[in-house]
Amino acid sequence: MTDLLWPGAQRAGGTFSDTAFLAAMVRVEEAWLTVLGSPLPLEELVGEDDLAALALGAEDSGNPVVGLAALLRERSGEHRLHRGLTSQDVVDSALMVLLRDTVDRVQRQVLQQVAALEALAQEHRRTLMAGRTLTQHAVPTTFGLKAAGWLTAVLDAWDDLAALSFPVQLGGAAGTMAAAVEAGIDPVAARLRLATTLGLAPTGPWHTTRRPVTRVGDALVACTDGWGRIANDVLTLSRPEIGELSEAVGGGSSTMPHKQNPVLAVLLRRASLTTPQLAATLHTAAADQADERAAGAWHAEWSTLQTLARRVLVAATQATDLIGSLRVDPKRMRATAEAAADDLRAEQRSLAAPGHHEPLGDYLGAADVFIDEVRDRARLVLAASGRTP
Amino acid sequence: MTDLLWPGAQRAGGTFSDTAFLAAMVRVEEAWLTVLGSPLPLEELVGEDDLAALALGAEDSGNPVVGLAALLRERSGEHRLHRGLTSQDVVDSALMVLLRDTVDRVQRQVLQQVAALEALAQEHRRTLMAGRTLTQHAVPTTFGLKAAGWLTAVLDAWDDLAALSFPVQLGGAAGTMAAAVEAGIDPVAARLRLATTLGLAPTGPWHTTRRPVTRVGDALVACTDGWGRIANDVLTLSRPEIGELSEAVGGGSSTMPHKQNPVLAVLLRRASLTTPQLAATLHTAAADQADERAAGAWHAEWSTLQTLARRVLVAATQATDLIGSLRVDPKRMRATAEAAADDLRAEQRSLAAPGHHEPLGDYLGAADVFIDEVRDRARLVLAASGRTP
Amino acid sequence: MTDLLWPGAQRAGGTFSDTAFLAAMVRVEEAWLTVLGSPLPLEELVGEDDLAALALGAEDSGNPVVGLAALLRERSGEHRLHRGLTSQDVVDSALMVLLRDTVDRVQRQVLQQVAALEALAQEHRRTLMAGRTLTQHAVPTTFGLKAAGWLTAVLDAWDDLAALSFPVQLGGAAGTMAAAVEAGIDPVAARLRLATTLGLAPTGPWHTTRRPVTRVGDALVACTDGWGRIANDVLTLSRPEIGELSEAVGGGSSTMPHKQNPVLAVLLRRASLTTPQLAATLHTAAADQADERAAGAWHAEWSTLQTLARRVLVAATQATDLIGSLRVDPKRMRATAEAAADDLRAEQRSLAAPGHHEPLGDYLGAADVFIDEVRDRARLVLAASGRTP
Amino acid sequence: MTDLLWPGAQRAGGTFSDTAFLAAMVRVEEAWLTVLGSPLPLEELVGEDDLAALALGAEDSGNPVVGLAALLRERSGEHRLHRGLTSQDVVDSALMVLLRDTVDRVQRQVLQQVAALEALAQEHRRTLMAGRTLTQHAVPTTFGLKAAGWLTAVLDAWDDLAALSFPVQLGGAAGTMAAAVEAGIDPVAARLRLATTLGLAPTGPWHTTRRPVTRVGDALVACTDGWGRIANDVLTLSRPEIGELSEAVGGGSSTMPHKQNPVLAVLLRRASLTTPQLAATLHTAAADQADERAAGAWHAEWSTLQTLARRVLVAATQATDLIGSLRVDPKRMRATAEAAADDLRAEQRSLAAPGHHEPLGDYLGAADVFIDEVRDRARLVLAASGRTP
Repeated sequence: MTDLLWPGAQRAGGTFSDTAFLAAMVRVEEAWLTVLGSPLPLEELVGEDDLAALALGAEDSGNPVVGLAALLRERSGEHRLHRGLTSQDVVDSALMVLLRDTVDRVQRQVLQQVAALEALAQEHRRTLMAGRTLTQHAVPTTFGLKAAGWLTAVLDAWDDLAALSFPVQLGGAAGTMAAAVEAGIDPVAARLRLATTLGLAPTGPWHTTRRPVTRVGDALVACTDGWGRIANDVLTLSRPEIGELSEAVGGGSSTMPHKQNPVLAVLLRRASLTTPQLAATLHTAAADQADERAAGAWHAEWSTLQTLARRVLVAATQATDLIGSLRVDPKRMRATAEAAADDLRAEQRSLAAPGHHEPLGDYLGAADVFIDEVRDRARLVLAASGRTP
Repeated sequence: MTDLLWPGAQRAGGTFSDTAFLAAMVRVEEAWLTVLGSPLPLEELVGEDDLAALALGAEDSGNPVVGLAALLRERSGEHRLHRGLTSQDVVDSALMVLLRDTVDRVQRQVLQQVAALEALAQEHRRTLMAGRTLTQHAVPTTFGLKAAGWLTAVLDAWDDLAALSFPVQLGGAAGTMAAAVEAGIDPVAARLRLATTLGLAPTGPWHTTRRPVTRVGDALVACTDGWGRIANDVLTLSRPEIGELSEAVGGGSSTMPHKQNPVLAVLLRRASLTTPQLAATLHTAAADQADERAAGAWHAEWSTLQTLARRVLVAATQATDLIGSLRVDPKRMRATAEAAADDLRAEQRSLAAPGHHEPLGDYLGAADVFIDEVRDRARLVLAASGRTP
Repeated sequence: MTDLLWPGAQRAGGTFSDTAFLAAMVRVEEAWLTVLGSPLPLEELVGEDDLAALALGAEDSGNPVVGLAALLRERSGEHRLHRGLTSQDVVDSALMVLLRDTVDRVQRQVLQQVAALEALAQEHRRTLMAGRTLTQHAVPTTFGLKAAGWLTAVLDAWDDLAALSFPVQLGGAAGTMAAAVEAGIDPVAARLRLATTLGLAPTGPWHTTRRPVTRVGDALVACTDGWGRIANDVLTLSRPEIGELSEAVGGGSSTMPHKQNPVLAVLLRRASLTTPQLAATLHTAAADQADERAAGAWHAEWSTLQTLARRVLVAATQATDLIGSLRVDPKRMRATAEAAADDLRAEQRSLAAPGHHEPLGDYLGAADVFIDEVRDRARLVLAASGRTP
Repeated sequence: MTDLLWPGAQRAGGTFSDTAFLAAMVRVEEAWLTVLGSPLPLEELVGEDDLAALALGAEDSGNPVVGLAALLRERSGEHRLHRGLTSQDVVDSALMVLLRDTVDRVQRQVLQQVAALEALAQEHRRTLMAGRTLTQHAVPTTFGLKAAGWLTAVLDAWDDLAALSFPVQLGGAAGTMAAAVEAGIDPVAARLRLATTLGLAPTGPWHTTRRPVTRVGDALVACTDGWGRIANDVLTLSRPEIGELSEAVGGGSSTMPHKQNPVLAVLLRRASLTTPQLAATLHTAAADQADERAAGAWHAEWSTLQTLARRVLVAATQATDLIGSLRVDPKRMRATAEAAADDLRAEQRSLAAPGHHEPLGDYLGAADVFIDEVRDRARLVLAASGRTP
């Protein structure tokens, strides 16, 4: 799944692709057949070759389920197929399957980042550098504390991802499950079975109550917010005039052979500039819900979720690569700090603190304490995830 | 605090006003003096009369704290004032105090809505109405189930608000607390004391790690998403051709004396059209963080938070009023459903369900079950909040 | 180019597809070879089969041009290929070629809409209907005037599209064209020739001055704003309780055989909920430009433009279909108006206007005048475009 | 009009304040009385003291006009007041008066910037500096060419502002002007007179066709996009490690006495992070228009426009100050370029260009040509505006 206009897109592989979406919808129909007591494997009945025809037909009814159900019914010969479901049950449950899968993959990347940043914070707890505020030199800090700050961003993202829930959708035509009940189905048991089969959470219908969707969107954006924040530091600190960080494998130029561009940071920043608006689109759609099924607001979510999910997954692996291969130049950091010592000591001087002639590295306050606090938090996450910190 | 361009603004009262922000910053400086061992009441030293001068001066340094600290120092005669803090400690902690206060007030409204909607869902569990999807008649439903859907939206918002944390900010010039430590302050104990005094959570510095801010933004938008969704139904169902709902106190027109406009719903929808972008701005700012203090991204948050917080609080009370005074017309609902019975029965007919000549009210599937599930969830929230459901 | 998650996507055909982008980049390189005095057809040298490899390689340098230039150089044996250009020259010029092509196609649709709406406004200038404000009945109007309002939206979009300019990008590595000048190229003549060959406007470098991009974005969003506004009226007026409009070919349901959903209106509303954020992303990127080439803000534009362009083109043809096949029910319109006559006459009564017992159709003020003004505007556009109005 | 949460807000003075909005509405009512043949000065009848009561009352009807018309009628004794208008005529026309006023003021600032940047580009056409792409050194450029790039951004903004039109709104209750026509008013003549009196453009009703609003929003955002882009360069180039630019009057810190923060650039970047979402809100509202008056989408525009207009005006004067007082350090620029000569010459070397041992300043291509093209464009604008370039 490459994309000429979004370099790196192949990193998302088939996750949340059109093919994956089709397969997820088939899984929903298959799981429902089991609930109906007519288990039948459907997986082999449709595939990539059907994508174009299903997508074409989707415009007639506004969604791809009408066509898909007809196709599956025809090929399986099972007339009960889809009975009692509505299109939205299938689409929403399939989207949740894909979102859960995406979030799983993102979480695995985040765990790696947590481990790498925890080590980086520890390794550089004595690496003196200039603290910078509003672009100007402020007071001394360490690269370890900066890494701990990055780690905080990544841990915050972890917390949000870990708290997500992915509910099954099951309500029938207008949220009453009338057709299913009419067919003798027990609604609560059926929901539990459907949810369990799909690995989703059982919950009442949420056809026009979209917080489950916006929560995923918000959590995914929180990821790129954090990686964007890291990328910004890499971009600034790898400027040749600063030179404190660099990407191990810089990118080339079409005309300038010497260039070592911080490409991963560039691509992360790119992602972080686009995802907030995608999550806002999900909120705008959530606020536009109406009746028992929205006329447009529901449809606006699908492609938005796909774009958001894939971009965040791509960024996740790029962030892992960036963090894992970052080159730190402690000498340059120290040299810059020492050269700026006069400015970096100004606060200390203004306090008439007696030590303001002592080494810059003695004016680091609670840097180590703060590093350890974040490292502790990281180790708890790693341990709970079965990784040795 | 009226606003000619945002009718209803006065409902937010002084919450998160400029005056409240000034007072909150003073509280932070005062609490810090206590930490420093020089407790001194500061509240009386500055007030509304100083607002203009402080705001004017704020442009010189980019934030109002430089001027405020100077003023407080001068008027209190306490030279230790602000010692060890940086502007961002004061601004961020003050913003969190105001956000916590806003969220408290919003939660109180949401609780009232939960109670009112729980009752509405129960009262109308037998109120038959046409279910509508993509604007067209689908299958029968009840107004009770619709109210349960609204209740779900409000409960989802409650969960998000209840999960929020409001951290104190304390890091000094570049997040090391060097100046405070230099002055002999124990950083962890000081942080705990400052946080406790302000009613905030103690946590490490988050100067450029802004998930605490975006989480509040996301949760507040989830509120207007939910109320907007309710408002949409009210707007549609109070159209004269439908007439199933109406606002008890409709709004007038400047030229048409008969008009009974659904003003509260209009104003709620208004809010829900604007808040997603405000939360997106917070995310964009979060992704633009850099160094040890951002050059613009931090500053972009303040007014955005104020606008968002006040609009959501205004909408909260409007939603309470709307829900509490909604007029439901069960007869009209039933009449419309009966008139559309042929369409509303089409699904049932297509299933060759034997009962498709029976009353529409017999084709309601699990509506009652779903209503009770949401009501149970509501009653848990009400009970946990000390309210008798 | 179908898309399972954006029903109707196939309507955009290959416009602004990855393949089209590749072809456009090749055209830029080919046109530049002509400028360099080494004309050589390149079109056949790369194609769809190279897409995946080029996209994969694009991550190394952050954009696909490094790989493309190497491939073209190798396959053509022409070592001067790309000489004097930078990646951004190729990408930006190719994007402008694709945007111009998209806008051309959108304009052709808009012209059809102008013609259809002009006719609709004329046909229904005597079709009485209830004017509705804030969802409630206000005073009488005509469907002709409503159609004229829709026509205004479409004409406004036309004006914006017609005013767009699509500049070539030509500046070399950092906007000085140093390499080209070094090679003896006259910069101004070369730019004119390149622009003319590509059908673009000659202008100075705009590598980090992105108004040409945001202007296209703003104009495209203005299109969906207008169609969304039309779709909203169709959605409301095709509700069964109102029934004044309907889509000729309503969409079906996966479970309810009777449903005639207003699918085109649903899909248009969908588009209009997503495009404002895409244009905002372009602005956010424009504001994030820096140096002589932005580190991420440039890269964020590409896929955003593709999504925006294709969605707007899809919506364009859907809007043409919707407008061209709309079923108007003048009898139902009149019947509703007459039934609401008491309310619709309230303003007239309050004016103590003597005629308030006369037919509703006599209280239409300047409706005809306003219709004719918009029709005149439409006919000017049609005539200037070589269409007989 | 200070704002503690938006430092610099006082620069907008009373432009587009609540008081200004009230005065503009009164001007509309007064101009309309003239059209009705009952001219009467209204200006003195209401004022700041009435703001709170009017704002409070505005919630009842959803807008402030019902209360204002009643007040003016009572105090003037003129019962014909507002006759034939609707609230939206008054609000929209008043908003356009304020937007035109804001745009006028912004344009005056932009003109000053054009003049200053034209001079800066000329002054520094020989000021050698390193061109930077993706944060890395690329090829040599001049500060004059950079300034010409900034000038292009400002000229683009000028073009957009200059192309704006500010239409009067006049349509009565539902866009037919029925009440006015009933009263014997000639609609076209009345509109022309009203528009002329208010300095607006005469045009047909646009109650639910909001491109006039979104066009202003788009043009205003284009301004902050351009200033944000300039601010980014200032922020980067005034980093102590680069030191090529600085603000004449740097901002101070609450704790670090030495800091010279680039405050104006910080505040400009702040603005540019928030305005794209405000313009997107206007588009979202435009796409949500419906019927003959929108139920919420119209109301969402007012405060959004106020915030956007005032922020852009504040930023306009800050940009003028920043540009007018910028300190350029040509020696540092040259020194950095010379130190990086090896990298800056890499492209030239790769071309086997014979001159790659000559001075860096000889590898500037068409820099001077491009500077002069932009300066010519600037001088045309200045001349057309009556300023000696």
